[in-house]
Parts: sequence; C-alpha cells; structure tokens
Amino acid sequence: MRGLVYHGPAHTSWDTVPDPVIEDDTDAIVRVDATTVCGSDLHIRRGDLPDVKPGTVLGHEAVGEVVEVGRGVNTRRPGHQVIVSSVSACGHCPLCRDAQYGQCRGGGGWLLGNLINGTQAEFVRVPFADHSTHRRPPYLSLDDAVLLAELLPTAYEVGVRNGHVGPGDTVVVVGAGPVGLAAVMISRLYSPRRIVAVDLSPSRLAAAARMGADSAELPGAMVADMSEGAGADVVIEAAGDPESFLLATRVVRAGGRIANVGMHGNPATLHLEDLWRKNLTISTGQVDTSSTPWLLDLLAYGRLAVFPLVTHRLALEDMEHAYEVFARGPETGALKVVLHRELPEPPR
Amino acid sequence: MRGLVYHGPAHTSWDTVPDPVIEDDTDAIVRVDATTVCGSDLHIRRGDLPDVKPGTVLGHEAVGEVVEVGRGVNTRRPGHQVIVSSVSACGHCPLCRDAQYGQCRGGGGWLLGNLINGTQAEFVRVPFADHSTHRRPPYLSLDDAVLLAELLPTAYEVGVRNGHVGPGDTVVVVGAGPVGLAAVMISRLYSPRRIVAVDLSPSRLAAAARMGADSAELPGAMVADMSEGAGADVVIEAAGDPESFLLATRVVRAGGRIANVGMHGNPATLHLEDLWRKNLTISTGQVDTSSTPWLLDLLAYGRLAVFPLVTHRLALEDMEHAYEVFARGPETGALKVVLHRELPEPPR
Amino acid sequence: MRGLVYHGPAHTSWDTVPDPVIEDDTDAIVRVDATTVCGSDLHIRRGDLPDVKPGTVLGHEAVGEVVEVGRGVNTRRPGHQVIVSSVSACGHCPLCRDAQYGQCRGGGGWLLGNLINGTQAEFVRVPFADHSTHRRPPYLSLDDAVLLAELLPTAYEVGVRNGHVGPGDTVVVVGAGPVGLAAVMISRLYSPRRIVAVDLSPSRLAAAARMGADSAELPGAMVADMSEGAGADVVIEAAGDPESFLLATRVVRAGGRIANVGMHGNPATLHLEDLWRKNLTISTGQVDTSSTPWLLDLLAYGRLAVFPLVTHRLALEDMEHAYEVFARGPETGALKVVLHRELPEPPR
Amino acid sequence: MRGLVYHGPAHTSWDTVPDPVIEDDTDAIVRVDATTVCGSDLHIRRGDLPDVKPGTVLGHEAVGEVVEVGRGVNTRRPGHQVIVSSVSACGHCPLCRDAQYGQCRGGGGWLLGNLINGTQAEFVRVPFADHSTHRRPPYLSLDDAVLLAELLPTAYEVGVRNGHVGPGDTVVVVGAGPVGLAAVMISRLYSPRRIVAVDLSPSRLAAAARMGADSAELPGAMVADMSEGAGADVVIEAAGDPESFLLATRVVRAGGRIANVGMHGNPATLHLEDLWRKNLTISTGQVDTSSTPWLLDLLAYGRLAVFPLVTHRLALEDMEHAYEVFARGPETGALKVVLHRELPEPPR
Repeated sequence: MRGLVYHGPAHTSWDTVPDPVIEDDTDAIVRVDATTVCGSDLHIRRGDLPDVKPGTVLGHEAVGEVVEVGRGVNTRRPGHQVIVSSVSACGHCPLCRDAQYGQCRGGGGWLLGNLINGTQAEFVRVPFADHSTHRRPPYLSLDDAVLLAELLPTAYEVGVRNGHVGPGDTVVVVGAGPVGLAAVMISRLYSPRRIVAVDLSPSRLAAAARMGADSAELPGAMVADMSEGAGADVVIEAAGDPESFLLATRVVRAGGRIANVGMHGNPATLHLEDLWRKNLTISTGQVDTSSTPWLLDLLAYGRLAVFPLVTHRLALEDMEHAYEVFARGPETGALKVVLHRELPEPPR
Repeated sequence: MRGLVYHGPAHTSWDTVPDPVIEDDTDAIVRVDATTVCGSDLHIRRGDLPDVKPGTVLGHEAVGEVVEVGRGVNTRRPGHQVIVSSVSACGHCPLCRDAQYGQCRGGGGWLLGNLINGTQAEFVRVPFADHSTHRRPPYLSLDDAVLLAELLPTAYEVGVRNGHVGPGDTVVVVGAGPVGLAAVMISRLYSPRRIVAVDLSPSRLAAAARMGADSAELPGAMVADMSEGAGADVVIEAAGDPESFLLATRVVRAGGRIANVGMHGNPATLHLEDLWRKNLTISTGQVDTSSTPWLLDLLAYGRLAVFPLVTHRLALEDMEHAYEVFARGPETGALKVVLHRELPEPPR
Repeated sequence: MRGLVYHGPAHTSWDTVPDPVIEDDTDAIVRVDATTVCGSDLHIRRGDLPDVKPGTVLGHEAVGEVVEVGRGVNTRRPGHQVIVSSVSACGHCPLCRDAQYGQCRGGGGWLLGNLINGTQAEFVRVPFADHSTHRRPPYLSLDDAVLLAELLPTAYEVGVRNGHVGPGDTVVVVGAGPVGLAAVMISRLYSPRRIVAVDLSPSRLAAAARMGADSAELPGAMVADMSEGAGADVVIEAAGDPESFLLATRVVRAGGRIANVGMHGNPATLHLEDLWRKNLTISTGQVDTSSTPWLLDLLAYGRLAVFPLVTHRLALEDMEHAYEVFARGPETGALKVVLHRELPEPPR
Repeated sequence: MRGLVYHGPAHTSWDTVPDPVIEDDTDAIVRVDATTVCGSDLHIRRGDLPDVKPGTVLGHEAVGEVVEVGRGVNTRRPGHQVIVSSVSACGHCPLCRDAQYGQCRGGGGWLLGNLINGTQAEFVRVPFADHSTHRRPPYLSLDDAVLLAELLPTAYEVGVRNGHVGPGDTVVVVGAGPVGLAAVMISRLYSPRRIVAVDLSPSRLAAAARMGADSAELPGAMVADMSEGAGADVVIEAAGDPESFLLATRVVRAGGRIANVGMHGNPATLHLEDLWRKNLTISTGQVDTSSTPWLLDLLAYGRLAVFPLVTHRLALEDMEHAYEVFARGPETGALKVVLHRELPEPPR
C-alpha cells in the first residue's frame, strides 16, 4: 500500500510500504476512507518529537471500514464503518477504567503515527480495536467523523471541560487554529457572556469571527480589552508557545481557570510571585477521546455544526501537498485539510 | 498602646503607638490576648512586600476580646471572645457571597498588618467585624484558636482541599514548616495511603515524622523514592521557592494535582514541554478562611490535634524576640510562636 | 398605607394597614414599585400554610426604592433602587456563609408574606437589608427585575442546577406554569438535546412551545414518547403534586436526576422497589437566591430573555384581581402578573 | 459439579448440575475457591425476585482460579487468581465507558445468580471476563477478597460516596447488617464527627459498636438523639424497608444527603409536604464495582481492616446451612459467612 513515511527531520515521502497485518489478537485492520493532518504532525515532520522513529507512517486520525479483526476483538467486524481515535486504549487498566484513555498504562495511549505506523496511508492497524474505535452512523459525513477522531474531543475535554466554561463566563481562546476554533464553537454550547479569540493571523481572526467568537483580537488589543474588567473567567491556551501561555496568565481573573490545550516544545515562565495569591487553576492534558460518543450525539442532534472547520478536501495521494496547505494555514486561512480515499463531489 | 512597627526593610521595633479607634461603622476594636508570627511577616520585615508602608503595625492573626464596635456591627458586642481572621471580608460583594473572602472586591482582603495596622499590638482595629471574626468557644485554648486565624485554614483550603486529598492517595508535602506540617495533619483526616514530607532541615523532618508523616525525606531522597511508582497523587507546595515548585512538577503523577500554598517572591519555570500531556491540575491561592468554623468543629470534636505546632509561648512584649525564634525555626526546630497578653503557666 | 391582608382561609382583602417601621437595626423600608403573585400565595390564601397568621400582609417578591434604613445597614441607602429577594438572610450564620440563604439559621429564611408582613403593599420592611436586597441597575426593567426576586433563581437553583442540565441532555419539565417555563428557558443555556414540557393545560403547552420547549405534551403522550429511548437525563418537577412526582420517577433514565421544584402539600409514593437500583439522584429545595447576581448579568448581557413570562401588568391596587387572573392561568394562559405602583404604558 | 439450585419460592437444594462451559468468546470458567451468601440471596430464595427462574444456580460473589477462557478474553488466563465481581460488564457500551458497570447496556449488569447461573457452586461461567474479574494479589486473603466482589464496593459506592461523607460530618447508618457495618468502617476513613448505627437487633448494635460506630442505638433512641441538633449530615439507608427509609427522611438535616443502599421490595412514602424545602439529596443505586481496585489498595495498604465482618467459615457443600446461619444473623450476631473449597485452619 501507499503511506506517508517519516524519514527524519524535514523529510517525509509518500511511499510504497508493506500492508499492515494483525499483530495482536486485539488488533483490527481499517481501510482509511478519510484522514487529516494535525498540528502535531508538523512538529513530528520538523523532528521535534524524538520518540518518532524514521520509517514510521504518520497520522493518528481516520475514518474507514474494518477489513480484518484479531481473534480477541469482540465488538468490531469486517464491514463496520468506524472512527479511529487518536488514542488507543487497552480498556482494562486502572486509568482506562477511569476513562483516562490517553494515560493508558496497559500498552495504549498515543501510538498511531507516533510509536507505531499511523493513519496517513491506505490501511492502518488499530490496536485494542474494541476500545479505540467508534461506530460511525451512516448519517455522519466523513468530514465530520474525522474531526471526532481527535480535534473535537481535544477542544472539549482539554479546553472547554477542563476550563469549566459556564453561562455568563468571559472566555478567551488564545490561538485560533483548528483546535482553538473548535473550542470557540463548543464553548458556545454553554452560553458564555463573551468569547474572545486571539491570534496573530488576520485570516484566523476572520475565521474566529465567522465561527462564533464575539470578538477576535490581536494579543495586545485583547490584553487592553481585558484589563478594563476583572479579567477572563476562563482562558483556553491553544497555541502552545511560552508567550501565549504567559498571556493566559496575564488576562485570567483571580479565581479563574487556564486550560492548556497547546502542545508545547519549550518551558514557560510561571510568575508565581504574582499568581500565588490569585486562586488560579491551571490544567494541562492530552485528549482521552472519552467524549467522542457525546460529541457524536451533539453533531447528530444538530447542536453543533463543525462543517466550516474543514476548508480543503484532497485525495489521499496528495498527502504531501496537504501538509503544505495546512502548514501555511496561518497565512492563507486554511484550517483542516481532509484527505479522502474517494474524493467527494464538491458541495454545491 | 505598644505594637510592632515596620520602619522599612530589616527594621522593626516595639513602639508606643496611638490606640486604634473606630474609623468605619463596621469596625470593631479587639484587645489582643494572643497573636503569632507568620512566614509572611518575615518577608515583610525583609522588605519583600512593597505594599507595606513604613509605620505599619504588623501581624494578621489574633485571638482576643471585643472592646468596642461601630454602629454598623450587628453580631459582635464588647466582651465577645473572638478569633480575628487574617482576611477581612466585606461580606456583600459577589466574591464574598461565593465565600472567596480572600479575593473580596468590597474593600476587604488581606488588610491587617499589610495595608492597615495589624495584630502584633495590644489592640487592633478589625474592619468588617461581623464577617472577619469568629466567636471563640470557651473550651478552645488561645493557642489552638490563634492557629484558626490563618494557619489551619490555609493548610486546608489552599493545600488539602485544592489538592483533593482522598483515601488511598500518595501525598507529598514540600516544606515542613508550620503550614506544611498542618497540611500533613489535615491530610491524615482523609486516610491517604502515605504522606511524604520533604524539607532540607533535619529538625523539621523530625517534626514531620512526629506529626504524622509516613516518611520525612530530603528532596533528593524523595525524588528517588517517588520515581519507583506512578508518582504522587497530590503534591502540596508549602515552601514558596522556584526549586520546590519545580520539584513538585517532577514528582506528581500523570493526572495528579499540585496545590501551591507557598508565598513566592520569584517566578518558577513550568516545563510545559513535559507537562502539557500529563493531565495536571495546578492550583494557587490565598486563604479565604471560609473553613474556619468547620476546622473549629474538628478541633472541638477531637478529630484534629494541633497542639504540637506551637513550640514557644512568649509574652506580647517579647515580639522582637519571637521573630528571631521563629526565623531560626529551620535550624532549631521552632514552629509557631504564640505571644500572650497573659503568659499561661507552662503545661505540666 | 394599603396592602393585601390575609384574614384566614379563602379570605384576603386590600386594606389600610399601618406603615412599616424600622424594627431592627438591619432593616430597611422599601417603597414597592413592582410586585407579583406567586403560586405559593395561592396556597396561602387557601389556608394550606398554617404558619401564616391572619393579619399578615402577603407577598415576597418586589422591586422598589429604599426609603429608610436601620443603623446597622451598611450598604443600602435611601434612594437605592433594589430587588427585594424572597429570602431574607442574616449573612453570618454557617448556612449563609455557605450561600444557603434559604436555610438561614440566624433568624432569616422565607419571612416576607409568610412569618412577617410582605411585599404586596405600598411599602415593606425588609430584614437584613444588606443581604436580602440587590441593587437594580437602571437598564433593567421593573418586570425583569421582579422576576429576579424569586422566580428565576428558583427555576435555576432548584431546577436546572440541582438537575445538572448539560449539553446533549434530554430534559423533561413537568408543569408549564411560570417556574416550569423559566426552567425551560434557563435549561436552553446549556444546549440540551431536547426539552419536553408537560402539562394538562393546552394554553400552557402552547406557551411552552413558544418559549423554547422542543415539544410540549400531555403526561400520557410524554410517557409514551420517553419509553422509546433510555428515558430522561433530567426531570424538573415544577407542579408540586403526588402524581407529577410519580410521573417524574417513571420517565427518568437509570443514572438520571429528578430536581423537585414544586411546593408540595401532600406526600408522594416513592417506588423504591423499582428505583433502588436505578442510580437516581432526587433533590428537593427552597430557593437561596444566591444566583440572583449571575442571572441579573445574564439578563444584562442579553443571554436570557424572560419578557414573555409576564403576561399581565396591573396597578398595585388591583391586587385582588391579580390573584384571580393568576389563579385562572392554566385555563387562560396567564403567566406572571406584575403589579406596578405606576402602571407603565403598554408596550407597542 | 455441585451447586445450590433455586427451585421456586422457599426451595433450594445442593444439587449435581452440569459443569459450566464457554458459551461466548468473552466468557471465562472460574473454579470457586470462596463464595458467600448475600441478603439478596435470601430475597431470591423467598421468591421476591421473579426474574430469577427455577433451575438457576444462585450466588454472585466469588474468588477463585481461572480454568478456561474464551477466545475473546484478552487479559485473563488459566491459572489466574481472580475476584469475580457481582456485576458483569461488557466494557464497551456508553455506560461502561462511564464506569457505570451496574447499568451496562451491552448485555451485562447483575447476571450471576440472577439471570444466569451463579457462584454458589464448584465452578462458574463469568461473562465478559476481562471486565468482570479482578486479579487477586497473593497477599490478599480469600475472605477479604470475597468481600471485594460486592459488599465493600456497595457500602462505598452506593453509601459513603453517594452520601458524600466528609470530615466533621454526623453520619447515621440505618441497618447494621454486613453492608451497614462496612459503611461504618469505610465512613471512618473520612474522619466524620460521629457515626451512629441504628438497628433493632442487640447483637448487631453490639457489632456496630465494636466496628467503629461512635454510638449504636435503637431507632427511637436515635431519633431522640438527632432531634437535639441540626440532624444528620448523611444518612445511609442499609436496611431496605419502608420504615427505615422513612426514618432516614426524619433525621437528615436540611441540606443533608440520604444514600439508599438497601434493596427494597415495597414502596416508601416520601413526605414531600415537609421535605420539598429541605434541600435534600436522595440517591439510589446498584453497585458498579468500579471502586474494587481502590478498595483492594486500601486493604493492601492497611488502611481498612474488614476481617471482623466474616464471622463464619464453612465448607462449600454446607451451603444450605450457610443460608440458615446468615438468615439468623440479626438474632445470633452472624455477619458474613464465607464458604471455602478448602476450609482453612481456624485462625488462632
């Protein structure tokens, strides 16, 4: 089959690689009907994540059809349409029993496109298939479904839920990329007073304004804005750099929450000399995808419309082009790029 | 009257100062029967808190008798025996209505010995007396009562409660001074698996072992110890320096909590490149003293014995000596020093 | 002055009564600019609440202007525009410090129009005025403001919050009178999947459909509807009779919540032989009005529009007529009747 | 093999029955080394649970050795020592993913000795073996281990946790049988002010006093006792009859919690005319056994000593005698009767 292989820093190519096979009883092989590129894939391609070994097929989000299952798989069968979660969960360890799948101690966690071959390929081996896939109902589009593999659960679990967004809150979302914009959309479900999106990119600020932010501002303007009142009840950090984290600590009100969603490559400074007495709660986290079924229901009930997050649809073999399109998002306004096995007709 | 006056960095003296008078309708004047010295007083004396102006009487913890009340005081009368909270709370603003007295927006907060004259004197003016004092029942000793003014609520609210200590948890308390030791004692109420106290001072480690820690260790030994298992469920940072905060972030388990109690004078480094995916919750906070009535009940019911935290009893006029005794605590083993208007007979 | 006096079961009249005067230092006298009739007033008039003594002026909701304050009132002054809460709270007892104002042990609780003279009069004495009134901002209409005195906090605190309504939930509201309809409106803030209102009155079902219920059904139809799926996540009982409570226990799903808001005059049967294993949470409660400031903000920010709950505006002296209009609500569609000192021009 | 078979109301016998075999891929066959009799078994024998069909082998608690597994079992192997949970959980349905195993919608729930053959036999077929068994560490005695199958998780999850027992609380446990006594023991972990056990049986009251209750009282004495103060913060109903539930509603304080643990056969009266305004939380529930690993750790760490709950040890074939001993517990003081494949030497 064909897949996107990491060959070392700044070097990936769309190669012919061996078809995946069942290695453990709990594995399933899934034909990839749709996949996408994540911000962490860009980090990997740059060589920022040394755990990823050359020769690895990248990608950790997919929707597709089960084509084969191991003898220990009990609830998935060939022909099932499934969402492949970015998190592979053993389902039995104490952390999985507590729905902290992302912290699985039974051999799972973030494996796909990280420690084992991933989803940016024609087929993918999915470990612990009973616990690491979700049935896709026929009415759910491939584009919506692929966002449930990681993006929407991350924005909800690590951002909105950890930040305890509630009615009447002032919410600041730092970073208006796809995850930040999803956090804006999901925050709306709780009727906050006001959602302020912050970014350096004019096109992303424009996207935030279109997608439900009450205001979309440059960092400096936001700080000035926030300094008038008590500050933000919740800050969702979805940028992942030291400056944006610092910004979060400056604009949060006493008693407020900072939910860090961003993947960081560098330490940040925590000004405890100011913050020790501010009754802050700062959370960090990697997605568990425990909320996927609930988010799927919200999509199904029409309570959440995430269609605008997908700006580009490409054919699977255009994977390298997809990386370029996605990487240039801050300049061009591109958000999620979904790669399809069979490219759909463009919506009319 | 006599009181301890701050004259600028490293300069305090036991001076004759004017008696306090009712300035606002909600004030009370309290005769100080017992007061104490807090770690923050040492910071102030060094000049670390520029908000404290020369000429201020220091101290923010006291037990005594009400001698006069303003016309707007409704529940306290001359002759009432009261605990004076370190936090003065207006009682009406939205944050007070939410029991976040320490963050009061109605003119209260930490005033005593900080923005106004404090308790290290023969008398003290207590603002918002209805909300800033607690009746002292006759069976509660002065020593126990003065610990309720700030120390015990801080250890509970900012440490044990923010850290969500529960049965079976592994709890690390970094810093075995009076607040850390109180956190050890209060954590015991929740039947954790194990409480590890950490300090650099041998005498404080000895105190921790006496007061309920399952082990008392130097930082390096603790890190080695913790690295065997999953790490600590809860870390209570009660030291207030960048190294101890860093230590907390190194030994907490994925999914664990760090409750910062320490008063910091410098920024700390937050290694988000490691921590972003660890599902941590980090809290900071200043005491609200909302738990004082509950802690008073625990003392009254015999569920909590804090007697060993008081190692020295001095006469009020020995205030300057008290600072020295307390400041040398890490070397000498001194913990809380309580200053009495009438020095009690030593316990037999 | 004039006020509505209870003379015993089924007997009230609009009488001349003595003007209220300051009795305790913490009292305020408020000129009533708007008041309303509550379902509990109908119970009182029928004689269902024996605590209410003949001679009592009824009513416990008002908006008006402070005209006099006792010497122990610290934050209200003559001329202040205020909302008078149905709950009078001492503000100092342990339950008030925990924001459980309705359960005040310091002499407060539901006093107005119950244990002391109430708000259906030209003036009212408000005990514990600092804690029992809220400043009314000028942009808040009298009609909206009077709903904040009890109706909206009840629907939120005892219904929506106790029921833990969340995104994606199926919510059943039993009883589509003013409190039930307010619960429908406030539930919407949390983006539930579906809100089903239930009532026997066609006009109230019509009102529910207009005000945001996804379906409005007779009890039998609702039970049939719910029996298709897992049942309701949340049932808000806002009717107050044994049959409606029984209905709630029949349609809630395993693991669901029943929030009882209704004021009951009779016992209900709890079928524990079916329910013991269903993981239910059943809550009861009297309003605390602790959420009034938050609800006021939601109105101010345009996040909640409660205008349609007020169907009639009458002059204060038409109080007896107001009772008739309100009592016939289930037949006529009348919801809240607001009585004004100065009747506003009808909205165009 | 031999097993205790239900033949209809009041008729059970120790019969020869076919050995269990793997029926589904996720099954395991476990050799029963220890089992016990539960209060619900007495109900079943009386014919109170019509779901139980004649011919069923009873029992739902066991410890033993895995002797065979289906091809879909991934984490258990022949030779594993396991605790068999009373709840069989599919592990994949939305309720299992939320750790509500007792409410499993994927074919699990309370199956053993209820809808399928149970554990009071030499061997038992355990459905969904990966999710329905726990590894037994070698240092855990068979007696302690068998209490983890249902009794201790029930007392904790449905009683102590649902009741939110905390430091300083007054806790009333109604019913001092094995579950009630376990609730007393586990409540102690949270340092309540006082635990009052209530029962009609003098021998059970004596057991309660031995096992950590601060007082052990007859119902009338307890009501008199509670009426002096504000009432109980938490009432754990562990008796399962209408009178004891009524008692719970009479002694709980305003704002308190009633956690119903008892299995009820009849409806109870809920005096909503008194309770509607008391801010109560009433919970019901069937055990999920989600807390089994945590309780196992507490036993392992020496934080919980449940040894005294087992008063009798019999050989497996004495099953019918065990029912008699257990049924007469209220008179004789017998608590849990554990049946062993190999009867241990009596402890010296």
